[in-house]
Order: sequence, then structure tokens, then C-alpha cells
Amino acid sequence: MRQTSFAGMYCSMARSLEVIGDWWTPLILRDLYLGLSRFDELAEDLEISRNLLSTRLNTLVENGILERRRYSEHPPRDEYALSEAGLDLVPVLMALTAWGDRWVAPPQGPPVLFRHTGCGRSFTPEVHCSECGDGITAETVDVLPGPGGRAAAGTRLIAKLLRNKK
Amino acid sequence: MRQTSFAGMYCSMARSLEVIGDWWTPLILRDLYLGLSRFDELAEDLEISRNLLSTRLNTLVENGILERRRYSEHPPRDEYALSEAGLDLVPVLMALTAWGDRWVAPPQGPPVLFRHTGCGRSFTPEVHCSECGDGITAETVDVLPGPGGRAAAGTRLIAKLLRNKK
Repeated sequence: MRQTSFAGMYCSMARSLEVIGDWWTPLILRDLYLGLSRFDELAEDLEISRNLLSTRLNTLVENGILERRRYSEHPPRDEYALSEAGLDLVPVLMALTAWGDRWVAPPQGPPVLFRHTGCGRSFTPEVHCSECGDGITAETVDVLPGPGGRAAAGTRLIAKLLRNKK
Repeated sequence: MRQTSFAGMYCSMARSLEVIGDWWTPLILRDLYLGLSRFDELAEDLEISRNLLSTRLNTLVENGILERRRYSEHPPRDEYALSEAGLDLVPVLMALTAWGDRWVAPPQGPPVLFRHTGCGRSFTPEVHCSECGDGITAETVDVLPGPGGRAAAGTRLIAKLLRNKK
């Protein structure tokens, strides 16, 4: 179990990882996005321990990534749905899935295909520039220090290095 | 510590998470991308235990995400760099960072800013459709079963649900 909290790091990626929780979380978000909603369904799909699933769901609700809704009072039963923040994470997970299709897909090919309802075509999720619309790569981006950067745990050297580059 | 392997799941997102390793990994990739390369630098920046860092670096080299290069023979010292697969992951991590800027940034604002060398502007990494170039959201994508999909651990119900939707 990881002991260090990423919550206070001056890095939005680290903070994202902190609120997401652990590796099970992206799979839980995937399942809710794809149409499952109930505890038993999630447990069966993922073959995750019920204890761990319960902990993960509670954390995701506390962090505002999921919403819980009671659908039965007797017996008490809840279902789960993605919040606005949770839905906003879905395209990022799709981009990660596309990376997986390129580098670690099963030999039979990609497990799922994406179709964009906007243009009707099968597509690959790609990361693009919000300003010119072109795709970006590691080589075509400069990373510059922002107003919330600090040299502290998790960015001890990097924050200085970015500031010197400016 | 997570006991379940995601490596055999019929889901490219799960397989990606498996080869990435754990939450420290994205931070290690970030640091290497931003200009650190040596063990001691990574350990100092992240304040991660040297044992854990060593394990993570070995796994990343084994999984083909990092390359190790010996820069000194006496004493033996290695440095690390992103492989092609590692570099290909960087835009995904930038999209995750942008999500963090929207939902969990420090009160002072985003810790880093991105500039696209293609157009010269500050930008937000966004996930777009490879075919029409428009931005996608959770609501504008249909997920369909692909050739590598299977109803197995990790996709027990989801694979069937997707097939029925087809």
C-alpha cells in the first residue's frame, strides 16, 4: 500500500492520481460509463473483493467523482453514476486505452472500438492542442512553470528546473 | 498492495495500468520527460524510498517504457530515458494533468503551463477524434466491442453488455 499522499503535491497530475485512488478506480469508472451501476454488477465484472470495492466507491463519492443514489429502501440498495468530474475523466481514460491498444493489446486486437457520434466514424482518441487543434506529441510541447508551482515534496527539483528554463 | 494482475484482462486500459505499475510511475515518467535522468535526482524530487524507486525503474525498463543507459563505469551509474512507448504516453499524462487543473488544482492555479511549439500558444491538452478532429466528451462516443474483447475476469459482464448493444 502506498503510504505517501500525493494530495499536497504541486502537480495536477499527482493530485489527479490521488483523488482517483488506485488502479481499480479507472476500471470502476469504465464500468459505470459503459452501463453498470450496481455494487453486485461491479463486483462480478471486476472480480474485486467486496471490501475493496466498497472502500473504493466510498472514496470516489467523497472525492466528488461518483454520485450515489438509493434505488431501494427495503433492502437498502445504492447505485452509482459518474459525476460531472467523473464524466470529464472519461476522455482521458479513452486516450489511455488507445495507448494500450498500440502497445499492450491482446493478440486478437483491440478489445473495444470507439465511434464518435459527432462524425459517425470509428476513431482513435488523440491528445490535441486546444488552440490550433493539431495533435500534440511529447516533442512538440514546452512545459513552463505555472502560478501554482512550488518546490516541495513531489516537485522538489522539477519546480526549480522549470523556473530556470523560463 | 494490489494482488490481482490486470495483464490478462481484455481491456487495453487495464493492460496499460498493469504495465505502468503504480501511482509513482506517472510521476517518474513526468520527471524524466521534464529533464531529470538520474536515480538520485528522481529520489530527491519525489521523496520516494530508494528501494521502491529502484523496483519501479526496473519494472518500467522490463516493460519497455524506459531505457537504461550506463553513464559511468567506476562507480557504475545508470541514467534513464523514456522509450518510444514512454514518450507516447506523455500526451495522455498531459490530458490527465489538464483534468487535474480543472478539478483539483492548488488554489494558486495550475502548477505548470503547456505551450504547443506547433502554434506557439499556451494550450490545454484535450482529447479529440482522430477522424474529424473535434474534441470528444463522454457523451459523444459510442463504445463498441472489438476483435480482442472477451468475457473474462475484469470484463465479465461488460463484454456481454457491449456485444448486446451492437
